[in-house]
Amino acid sequence: MASSSPEPAAAAEADGSVQIRRLEIADREKGFLSLLSQLSSCPDLTASQFAGCFNDLAALGDDHVILVAEDPSAAPEQRILSTGCLFVERKFLRGCGKVGHVEDIVVDAAARGRGLGLRVVRRLVEIAKEAGCYKVILDCTPELRAYYAKCGFVEKGIQMAVYF
Amino acid sequence: MASSSPEPAAAAEADGSVQIRRLEIADREKGFLSLLSQLSSCPDLTASQFAGCFNDLAALGDDHVILVAEDPSAAPEQRILSTGCLFVERKFLRGCGKVGHVEDIVVDAAARGRGLGLRVVRRLVEIAKEAGCYKVILDCTPELRAYYAKCGFVEKGIQMAVYF
Repeated sequence: MASSSPEPAAAAEADGSVQIRRLEIADREKGFLSLLSQLSSCPDLTASQFAGCFNDLAALGDDHVILVAEDPSAAPEQRILSTGCLFVERKFLRGCGKVGHVEDIVVDAAARGRGLGLRVVRRLVEIAKEAGCYKVILDCTPELRAYYAKCGFVEKGIQMAVYF
Repeated sequence: MASSSPEPAAAAEADGSVQIRRLEIADREKGFLSLLSQLSSCPDLTASQFAGCFNDLAALGDDHVILVAEDPSAAPEQRILSTGCLFVERKFLRGCGKVGHVEDIVVDAAARGRGLGLRVVRRLVEIAKEAGCYKVILDCTPELRAYYAKCGFVEKGIQMAVYF
């Protein structure tokens, strides 16, 4: 599920104090995991566990991008206000084509209404386009249809899941 | 979209003559790409292009699995009757959890009703479970809800897309 934390429809787009950038290993100390826990189960990770996961993902290079929105004026452990992920799937279809998958979009409950989630999603879509993807897809609840429509997404089908 | 080529609801499950196995580079000569073209645009690839794509995907190891159903009794260029893909997404969520994505399920038009697609999907789900995924997801049209329900999938949300 790409997001369960939408911002209001009237969200302001501009928020110059907040920088959108790639995840860094130091973001563990800036509230990245507690932000993710607002989306789904996200147990705390030790610095070593975090580094292991970070390095596994970094090894995927541009096929796996995590963006964060950082507010440098916030308390150190509360600086990461939004995040989102793009991973690139490679296929035989479409002449060895690539598809971008947007996952794990979340905006801190106290930072909603500032357009930060939309800024993250739009940048992820740009990155996918620059990487040569022929499309970007995501899964969400029906309530978020209008939210993602602001980023150019249209409804294409249903998502199904098996949980173990 | 995981599939636009369902089999009838009364599909037989047993088809001992057909083997489900991982994609091999020789499958280019056994109709793999023409099968995929029944699902979506799939221009032919030269042997060199195919090998390049195959090796890129093989480099992902168990994080990217393509299964095929082969009928050894069919004409050489028509032996691949069904295919499906699993790729494993790694997350920070769920304690560095993993999610399986099922993609590109297709059954040859002349081989539907033999349960081959279900065999491929079920095996992909097993592989995801063995790999430690906490869930497997796919996107499809609403018409395929009952088809994937046979493999334990339940509807979770909507799929949205941007095409470039």
